[in-house]
Amino acid sequence: MKLWDKGEQATSEVIEQFTVGNDRVLDLEIAEYDLRASKAHARMLNSIGILSDEESHDLLSELDNLLDEVEEGSFTIEEDFEDIHSKIEYELTRKLGQTGKKIHAGRSRNDQVLVCLHLYVKDQILEIKELVKELFKRLISLSEQHRDVIIPGYTHMQVAMPSSFGLWFGAYAESLIDDLHLLNAAYRIADQNPLGSAAGYGTSLPLDRTMTTDLLGFETLKYNSVAAQMSRGRLEKSTSFALSSVAATLSKMAMDVCLYMSQNFGFLSFPDELTTGSSIMPHKKNPDVFELVRAKCNSIQNLPNELILITNNLPNGYHRDFQLLKDTFFPAVKMLKSCLNISHFMFGQVQVNPNVIHDEKYDYLFSVEKVNKNVMRNVPFREAYQKVGEAIAKGTFRPDKKLRHTHEGSIGNLCNKEIKKKFNQAYNQS
Amino acid sequence: MKLWDKGEQATSEVIEQFTVGNDRVLDLEIAEYDLRASKAHARMLNSIGILSDEESHDLLSELDNLLDEVEEGSFTIEEDFEDIHSKIEYELTRKLGQTGKKIHAGRSRNDQVLVCLHLYVKDQILEIKELVKELFKRLISLSEQHRDVIIPGYTHMQVAMPSSFGLWFGAYAESLIDDLHLLNAAYRIADQNPLGSAAGYGTSLPLDRTMTTDLLGFETLKYNSVAAQMSRGRLEKSTSFALSSVAATLSKMAMDVCLYMSQNFGFLSFPDELTTGSSIMPHKKNPDVFELVRAKCNSIQNLPNELILITNNLPNGYHRDFQLLKDTFFPAVKMLKSCLNISHFMFGQVQVNPNVIHDEKYDYLFSVEKVNKNVMRNVPFREAYQKVGEAIAKGTFRPDKKLRHTHEGSIGNLCNKEIKKKFNQAYNQS
Amino acid sequence: MKLWDKGEQATSEVIEQFTVGNDRVLDLEIAEYDLRASKAHARMLNSIGILSDEESHDLLSELDNLLDEVEEGSFTIEEDFEDIHSKIEYELTRKLGQTGKKIHAGRSRNDQVLVCLHLYVKDQILEIKELVKELFKRLISLSEQHRDVIIPGYTHMQVAMPSSFGLWFGAYAESLIDDLHLLNAAYRIADQNPLGSAAGYGTSLPLDRTMTTDLLGFETLKYNSVAAQMSRGRLEKSTSFALSSVAATLSKMAMDVCLYMSQNFGFLSFPDELTTGSSIMPHKKNPDVFELVRAKCNSIQNLPNELILITNNLPNGYHRDFQLLKDTFFPAVKMLKSCLNISHFMFGQVQVNPNVIHDEKYDYLFSVEKVNKNVMRNVPFREAYQKVGEAIAKGTFRPDKKLRHTHEGSIGNLCNKEIKKKFNQAYNQS
Amino acid sequence: MKLWDKGEQATSEVIEQFTVGNDRVLDLEIAEYDLRASKAHARMLNSIGILSDEESHDLLSELDNLLDEVEEGSFTIEEDFEDIHSKIEYELTRKLGQTGKKIHAGRSRNDQVLVCLHLYVKDQILEIKELVKELFKRLISLSEQHRDVIIPGYTHMQVAMPSSFGLWFGAYAESLIDDLHLLNAAYRIADQNPLGSAAGYGTSLPLDRTMTTDLLGFETLKYNSVAAQMSRGRLEKSTSFALSSVAATLSKMAMDVCLYMSQNFGFLSFPDELTTGSSIMPHKKNPDVFELVRAKCNSIQNLPNELILITNNLPNGYHRDFQLLKDTFFPAVKMLKSCLNISHFMFGQVQVNPNVIHDEKYDYLFSVEKVNKNVMRNVPFREAYQKVGEAIAKGTFRPDKKLRHTHEGSIGNLCNKEIKKKFNQAYNQS
Repeated sequence: MKLWDKGEQATSEVIEQFTVGNDRVLDLEIAEYDLRASKAHARMLNSIGILSDEESHDLLSELDNLLDEVEEGSFTIEEDFEDIHSKIEYELTRKLGQTGKKIHAGRSRNDQVLVCLHLYVKDQILEIKELVKELFKRLISLSEQHRDVIIPGYTHMQVAMPSSFGLWFGAYAESLIDDLHLLNAAYRIADQNPLGSAAGYGTSLPLDRTMTTDLLGFETLKYNSVAAQMSRGRLEKSTSFALSSVAATLSKMAMDVCLYMSQNFGFLSFPDELTTGSSIMPHKKNPDVFELVRAKCNSIQNLPNELILITNNLPNGYHRDFQLLKDTFFPAVKMLKSCLNISHFMFGQVQVNPNVIHDEKYDYLFSVEKVNKNVMRNVPFREAYQKVGEAIAKGTFRPDKKLRHTHEGSIGNLCNKEIKKKFNQAYNQS
Repeated sequence: MKLWDKGEQATSEVIEQFTVGNDRVLDLEIAEYDLRASKAHARMLNSIGILSDEESHDLLSELDNLLDEVEEGSFTIEEDFEDIHSKIEYELTRKLGQTGKKIHAGRSRNDQVLVCLHLYVKDQILEIKELVKELFKRLISLSEQHRDVIIPGYTHMQVAMPSSFGLWFGAYAESLIDDLHLLNAAYRIADQNPLGSAAGYGTSLPLDRTMTTDLLGFETLKYNSVAAQMSRGRLEKSTSFALSSVAATLSKMAMDVCLYMSQNFGFLSFPDELTTGSSIMPHKKNPDVFELVRAKCNSIQNLPNELILITNNLPNGYHRDFQLLKDTFFPAVKMLKSCLNISHFMFGQVQVNPNVIHDEKYDYLFSVEKVNKNVMRNVPFREAYQKVGEAIAKGTFRPDKKLRHTHEGSIGNLCNKEIKKKFNQAYNQS
Repeated sequence: MKLWDKGEQATSEVIEQFTVGNDRVLDLEIAEYDLRASKAHARMLNSIGILSDEESHDLLSELDNLLDEVEEGSFTIEEDFEDIHSKIEYELTRKLGQTGKKIHAGRSRNDQVLVCLHLYVKDQILEIKELVKELFKRLISLSEQHRDVIIPGYTHMQVAMPSSFGLWFGAYAESLIDDLHLLNAAYRIADQNPLGSAAGYGTSLPLDRTMTTDLLGFETLKYNSVAAQMSRGRLEKSTSFALSSVAATLSKMAMDVCLYMSQNFGFLSFPDELTTGSSIMPHKKNPDVFELVRAKCNSIQNLPNELILITNNLPNGYHRDFQLLKDTFFPAVKMLKSCLNISHFMFGQVQVNPNVIHDEKYDYLFSVEKVNKNVMRNVPFREAYQKVGEAIAKGTFRPDKKLRHTHEGSIGNLCNKEIKKKFNQAYNQS
Repeated sequence: MKLWDKGEQATSEVIEQFTVGNDRVLDLEIAEYDLRASKAHARMLNSIGILSDEESHDLLSELDNLLDEVEEGSFTIEEDFEDIHSKIEYELTRKLGQTGKKIHAGRSRNDQVLVCLHLYVKDQILEIKELVKELFKRLISLSEQHRDVIIPGYTHMQVAMPSSFGLWFGAYAESLIDDLHLLNAAYRIADQNPLGSAAGYGTSLPLDRTMTTDLLGFETLKYNSVAAQMSRGRLEKSTSFALSSVAATLSKMAMDVCLYMSQNFGFLSFPDELTTGSSIMPHKKNPDVFELVRAKCNSIQNLPNELILITNNLPNGYHRDFQLLKDTFFPAVKMLKSCLNISHFMFGQVQVNPNVIHDEKYDYLFSVEKVNKNVMRNVPFREAYQKVGEAIAKGTFRPDKKLRHTHEGSIGNLCNKEIKKKFNQAYNQS
């Protein structure tokens, strides 16, 4: 059953196969939202006299039945339907006859899909923020736990300065705060009700869009109907920027882990059951999980570009092209959540090597400390630098591995409390 | 002069040529910020006893002299220097001797560049927001001015529903609000002081980073030194998401303009002096400006991807690769500002065709209105739809071109006042 | 069953779920190739004395049985197996015991997957070239059929010069030749045998790689084992460039079709059963198929970038990240084939409007003809141009719509025969 | 002076500034080609009677003068001209009056630019192929020179199998052959003459395009005028695929170098004057050159995507958007050439560490050799594997570091001769 079906014409099967897409599968993600939005629309139509009280009551009751099915997991979209919206309309009409048809007044599939996507994005962002928070807490706790474990810090991949696991774990924690800001921006963009924009140009029915905005818990309306229509693609893209940002944080951390697990570094490890190995290469611990986190997060970083390519240079107004957005967007959201989850899980069992720094190849790390000690005794920096250089050249340099870093954000003063405060502020800054 | 020069070695010229990049040109953009950050650093070094009062006074005074040069436009970076930072250090040392060298204590070029970029991004975002506001105001004013000019609305590029220039101009105005949210997020990410993170691992000098944070007007610190270092690339990328978002709005509007200026649409035009033409094709008005806005904004939409490609899969820590970020980032910022400027300029002279809708190819636009009229008389939507379909098939349909759209965001109720309020809220939500 | 399983350790289920990926589904695409490559490997092991004649015979016979299953469509990869390779090894061991295990000698899963991908890409490119040829033939035939139907040609989306459907159809046909060159390059890159490179560093077994190269019909070897390993990702990327190129041709053609079907152009159309419509908007014919061709081909154009992001900045050697390549690559190949198919199908029923040019808005199209006529009478171009401009300004210009274009590739001399010859040369230039 | 200037109108200066772009700078790259193509066009116009023998002679002579200027480096494009084409037309008219104007007959700026780009791309590809050949030869020679230096081979960044510098250098050499195939494809696509397609729809003048094709040394014509016009953007994109492919090879090699130069690997190094260092960190050798090769090549890998974004979803026909293509394309070509050059230069001085493998952390590398020895004695692979695993577990495993790899492409049989032959075949397969 297709809503635009003209009856007398048989749409060629080959066309149907090409155009149907994955909507039947993907739309299960938004079934709940279509039902909730339909309820709000029905109530509103009742309030402006297009639905009688009885009609409205019947529709709400049937929509609630379907919501129950969705919650129980028994709701399905059969092959006869091209998407969730046809399926729901069919169910309502089957049970309520004429009344079932009336719910379509004043809306089109365009704003139906749009409102579902806005509600979906809002929920997903909240979920992702929650997962980010869990990961943040774990990283901060690891930073505290391993605050005194010194490791080399690198520039140009060259051994450069003393660092620590306190700094390393804490750095990724603090970086997540930046990601929160982008998630918050995406949330605000999603938090505008597009329902009532119909096919993108509004309708002559006297809809009360403020009412559905309140019923659905939106902060505000996407007022202009053309603007509401244009949010298709834009909404996904704005969200994808935030997803890409979180993904970049995870991907970089995963790269570090893979490197640090290499026998050439040996900074950290994980229990055997979380890695893959080989009985003839007993020291080999393949970091498959982090390699896949890296790969998946790199793929997610590609999402904005894919969405741009699909929507770019299209004039305003609906295009069927938008159907493809769900195919790339929904799986990326899922993928990011699973990457956040597994990273949290893995770091729960990370094993840190406390003895990294004793390897003599890291001795020169401490030459800068010496320079700074002289600077504190009022030697100009460039001179202090030269002197230590000479000592090293003569072979008389002896590293003092005790570190006395005190400033904000240094090895000896991680400021994790301040970072936690900053995180919470960003988290709650809806 | 290179800071890492070891004296006895001549760095091969071919190497120098390959590595020097465009820093001498690009760095003029951040000269002011390097001087301001140097002042803050000097004051702080004085407060912790590394610089005497006299040394600090001398340094501040020379830095002020250089700031004057920058303001006057007489500041230059000669070929002898590889970047702004060497040049400034050279000037200070030339005039103040040992004192000039001392300012380098407790910082490295890494955090010097970082703090410049953070300050630069903050200023640029404020400028871009200002330009967005100007464009927003112009579009809202055009929406009001042409609120009653009906044009066809398209779906699938097919004539679909009545729309209006009120809706069209207003839609792009309202869309700019989404872009503001991303600009605000980028601003917050930039508004964290990285100075004091040195080469990415802090320093043993007892810096007072809170003091420089206050002096430079940052909201907060990027506390963790490794996190501060990691903001290189991340900062540019977060900002590029916002730039890309604004660019997408402009690009789509430019696409509409190019289409609407085509003789096949004829919806709007611009005075001859703003277009290019041909005396043998008098109706030809090439929308070169909007074609270039479109192209430039599409190029800007590519910026996040380029930044990702340059920085992706690099382990944490500084890499020389980051030098290339300025080459792509700075010109994109400039380009976006010029696109906002020219769009504002062009729309100041836009000529709207008030008679588009009288062409009979747009008659069927009004069939939906008829359906809705019946719906209001309590006919189920699907039935009302069928009846009008039959009338059209029989040739008895007569369009009634008077529109009575009343709901929020429809042709008859643009809600521009509400949109303005929403814009201002987002604008001020720093 | 995992090949790297150490027996005593239970790999955490959460890890398994995260890492397993879609290999079970995707690998059905390459089942045939793994069996063919296993046969070649078995024969070669026999020839160097690692498998006895009997062992080799038994293995070949079982592999043939499995190949039959694949051909019949009865071959499946059950949930117990992580991929096709484990499944096949399991089957061989189940039936042949020790002999089944022996086939793994001198190869690793790395070169097993690699050789499958090389064989898969070769076959896919041949299929795609065949589909390109079918489309080419249809477009050339349409170019011939409608060679005299004049339509306006646009520059800057402005009506500019006379064009024709002969030119338009022919242009996309000739453009496909460029795409063939990239497909040929990808084919050559795929036509190098990586089997025998083992895990990327070869093996101490005295393999005869030239023999498997011949048995599998490869043109040459990817000799260097590290180079063979590096072809993972590179092979897919090289192919993706060619896919992207074909996709760009289809996408642009689809954009033209969507525009030309708009009521504002009305250049061409398709039967009702190939479009979607609306009974109250009888002139509305939504070009859903071409919108989806456009969207899908734009998504395919994103493929190179996604592959680059997943593989970029990884040092040489296998990484688990590569698992994700199949997830993006295989579906894109399928998608492109279906887009080529449906485009061929649709153009089989295209309806061309022969009367476009009679609309008076296209009159000035013919002013350039007038200029050229004067040029042929020896008037300098710039002067001839000025004269026609003046005639138009005075209102005395009368278009002569008879066109006399004679040069190669012009309206009157399409050179489709030459284009066909060029196509066939490229097609056969394997 | 603008060619489309209507005389009476002053184009607003702000417009001019926005639209002029970098053509004056970029066009110097194609000055030579515009002059050569103009000569061919003049000869052809003479042959079809539009230019007299004298006119043709005068034009050719003046064009030769300008070509001399270009060769000497004295040719400039002053601020009065928007591009190379206006400049040349101006010069011809200044010196030859009416005759100078006549050369514009039968061509437009569209095909003028197009033919320049085709000629430019052809030359650039030949130059790049030459540079690729030089690098190839150096890598093969390094592979031979260091064929016996064993290094660990990695999978999952874990120490996995014995490899060698013979394999490592040779692998990148052989990979360059794949890149050649894409360069050849791009060359073939460029080797089609678009001159004569005028503004994309041909002309009514009886041009002889076959003649200009021969004069300019093109293999064939891009026959169809619309196809010729469509090659704008497509040509650059096809070439960018090849550039991106070469860049990916260089970028990966640079990543390896940066890693191998890290103190954690210590596989190779370069003389002090080719790296940057620090006198207080004497072991620190920053691989700036390779970091910048990596960054620049990653930026080049972004080129296809940028070109796609600028041109995508534009209907056929010229758009001013194409002006921006030169801005991204020309610098990328230059950048790739300099990366090839510097890589060749650097590898001329590479210092290989011959003792890497003696570190005991690489001992288990040789466990697979033991397994294979047993396999050769007819033990099934899985069993042999288990036995060595047990020996390792018991601590009785002793590595035998003598390697006896014999098959094609293994440590002991690099097949560099065969690889050279394959390279030369691809190189000459124009």
